[in-house]
Amino acid sequence: MSGAETDPERAAVDEFDQIARLFQPLTDGAPEALGLLDDAAVLQPPAGMSLVVTKDAVVEGVHFLPSDPLDLVARKLLRANLSDMAAMAAQPYAYFLAVAWPPAAGWPEREAFAAGLRHDQDAFGVRLLGGDTVSTPGPLTASLTLLGWAEPGRALLRSGAKPGDLVLASGTIGDGWLGLRAARDKLTWLGAEAVAALAARYRLPEPRLGLVGALAAHASAGADVSDGLLADAGHIAKASGVAMMLELERLPLSAPARAWLAAQPDRNAALADLATGGDDYEIVCTAEPRAAAALIGEARRIGLAMTVIGRVVEGGGVAASVDGAEVVVDRSGWKHG
Amino acid sequence: MSGAETDPERAAVDEFDQIARLFQPLTDGAPEALGLLDDAAVLQPPAGMSLVVTKDAVVEGVHFLPSDPLDLVARKLLRANLSDMAAMAAQPYAYFLAVAWPPAAGWPEREAFAAGLRHDQDAFGVRLLGGDTVSTPGPLTASLTLLGWAEPGRALLRSGAKPGDLVLASGTIGDGWLGLRAARDKLTWLGAEAVAALAARYRLPEPRLGLVGALAAHASAGADVSDGLLADAGHIAKASGVAMMLELERLPLSAPARAWLAAQPDRNAALADLATGGDDYEIVCTAEPRAAAALIGEARRIGLAMTVIGRVVEGGGVAASVDGAEVVVDRSGWKHG
Repeated sequence: MSGAETDPERAAVDEFDQIARLFQPLTDGAPEALGLLDDAAVLQPPAGMSLVVTKDAVVEGVHFLPSDPLDLVARKLLRANLSDMAAMAAQPYAYFLAVAWPPAAGWPEREAFAAGLRHDQDAFGVRLLGGDTVSTPGPLTASLTLLGWAEPGRALLRSGAKPGDLVLASGTIGDGWLGLRAARDKLTWLGAEAVAALAARYRLPEPRLGLVGALAAHASAGADVSDGLLADAGHIAKASGVAMMLELERLPLSAPARAWLAAQPDRNAALADLATGGDDYEIVCTAEPRAAAALIGEARRIGLAMTVIGRVVEGGGVAASVDGAEVVVDRSGWKHG
Repeated sequence: MSGAETDPERAAVDEFDQIARLFQPLTDGAPEALGLLDDAAVLQPPAGMSLVVTKDAVVEGVHFLPSDPLDLVARKLLRANLSDMAAMAAQPYAYFLAVAWPPAAGWPEREAFAAGLRHDQDAFGVRLLGGDTVSTPGPLTASLTLLGWAEPGRALLRSGAKPGDLVLASGTIGDGWLGLRAARDKLTWLGAEAVAALAARYRLPEPRLGLVGALAAHASAGADVSDGLLADAGHIAKASGVAMMLELERLPLSAPARAWLAAQPDRNAALADLATGGDDYEIVCTAEPRAAAALIGEARRIGLAMTVIGRVVEGGGVAASVDGAEVVVDRSGWKHG
C-alpha cells in the first residue's frame, strides 16, 4: 500500500500512522498483503479457478451526501462491489482500496470509514490487500477493486440468456428507489416503520452472495439491479442477443412497496417507476424453466425469494407489460404506456 | 465496466458512448473484458503463477497540474503502476481503471486521456479489462489497478535483504527531482537540452520492466524509487529487519545531473537532495555479491546500468555517507550532515 499526502499543512494525519492504525488491521494479517509495506500484493490463485475482478468508484456529492456517515459510505461501496460479484456467481475473496481524502477528513472521519469496512468485511468474509491513499482539494473520492473466484466456465455472464429461458428477480424490486424518497422524507405518510425499512434498503443494500452457488449451478445469465430492473435486464438482452418480455404485475414487492403502490392513482406508471428506479442490488437472471425451479428452491432454503417476472424470446430489447397491456420502454429510460 | 454520470445537465458525454468509443478499444478485444458490458471481468490465471496486484491513484492539483496534458497524466499513472510491478519482478498483464471526470472534461479531454493509455499499453503490453467512470464536481481523480504474474515464490519482496548483500540502483538517480525543477524553469542555466531531458524524466518515467527477469533470478529484495532513494531503501531495510550503508558518491547520475552537481556549492547537500527527491521510478534492490554481478551483467545486455551504491549490514535504518563522511537521515526525511 502506498500513500502520498505531500502537503504537511493540510495533512494533519500522518500517512504511515494512518496505514498502520487504520488499514493494516483490515488485512487480518493476510500474508498476501505483505503488511501493506510492499509495492504490491502477491497471492496464489486457487488451482484452476477463474479470477473475477470488479471495480467501482464513488464521489461525495454525486453518489453520497456530505452529511452521510462515512462508515455507511464505505459499507455501501464494498457492498456495491460484492453485489457485482454475486451477479457473476463468484465467491468474493479480497479487495484493494484507493481513497482521496479531502482536507476535512481527519482521524474521526477516517476511523469511521475504516470501521465500516471492518464491519462489512467480517460480515462478508473478505479482507484488504492493498491500495493507495492520497489527499484531494475536492470531494472525498474512493474506488474499490474486488477480486473473487469462480469455477472455470461457471462465472455467470450477461451473454448466456436463450429464448425459452425464464427471467427471475431476487428479493424485492423498487425498494432502492422508494428508499431514496423515504430518506428524503417524501414518504412520511407510509408510517415510520415503512420509512425506516425503505431508507435502510437504500442506505445499505444487501449483496445476494447467498445465491452464488445456485446461480452458478442453474442460471444462464445474470446482472445485479443497480441501474434499474428494466435497464439491467436490457443489458442482459443486449449482451445475449435476445429480447425479454417482462410482466410488471409479477414484480416482487416488499410490504412497504405494496402499501405505496396501493395508494398510487396510476398503477401502471407506479410499477414502471419501481422497475426503473435502480439501486436495488438484487439479482436479475435468466434460467431454463427446470433450472429456474431449482434456483427458486435453493433460494427458498436460504430464506430468499426468487420470482419469475418474465421470459426470454427471440429478438432484441425489453418489452414490458402490466396485466397484458404493453408499456413502452426506450433506450433513455421509460415511457409510461 | 460500469459508469454512472447521473446528472444529464453536466454530463455532455454519454456514458455508454464513452465506454464504446474510448474504453472498449483499449481492451484490444480481450475476451476477459467481456466487452466492458458485464458486472466484472473474468480471467484464467496461468497455471501455478502468483498474482501480483498494485493500485495507485492520482488527483489533479495534487499529483499533476490542471495544465498538464491528459495523455501524459494517463501515461504517468499507468507507468507508476508498471514501475511497482517491475519492482516486484512481476510481468504486467492487464489493468482496471476508475476515473472521476470533472465538468470541464468533455470529449477532447477524455480522448486525450484514452490516447495516452493506448500509447503506453501498446508500449508495455497490457490492456484494459474493466473499471468505472463517474462524474465529480471536484478535480479529475483516477485510480488504476494493475495485475501481473510472477513465478511462485519469485515475486521480489521488500523483506528479503540480508546482511552481506550489496545495494544496487538502476539507471540514474535524482533526475525526477531535478526534472520537476527543470519543468518549473528553475534550471534554465543548465541549457535547453539538459532542461528538456530532465523535464522529460519527470513527466514520463520509464518503468524498468526489462529488469523483471534478472530481478526475479538474482535480487533478494527490491522497491521502486518513488518516495526517494533513501526513503525507499529505508522501506526495504525496515521490511527486512536490516540496516543499509549507502555511499552517495557512488550514486549513478545522468549527464545533466552531473552538470548540476558540479555547480553546487555544497556537494554533500546536493547529493543528499538527489537521494531524497523521489519520482525517479528506478529500482533499488539488494543482492548477494555474486548475484549482484549477474544482475549488473544482465542489465548491461539490455542497455541499462545497475550500480552498486552500498551494502546491507546488521541493524536497522539507512546510514548514508559521502566520501566516508557520515550524513544523518531521520524518519521525516533528511538532515544535512
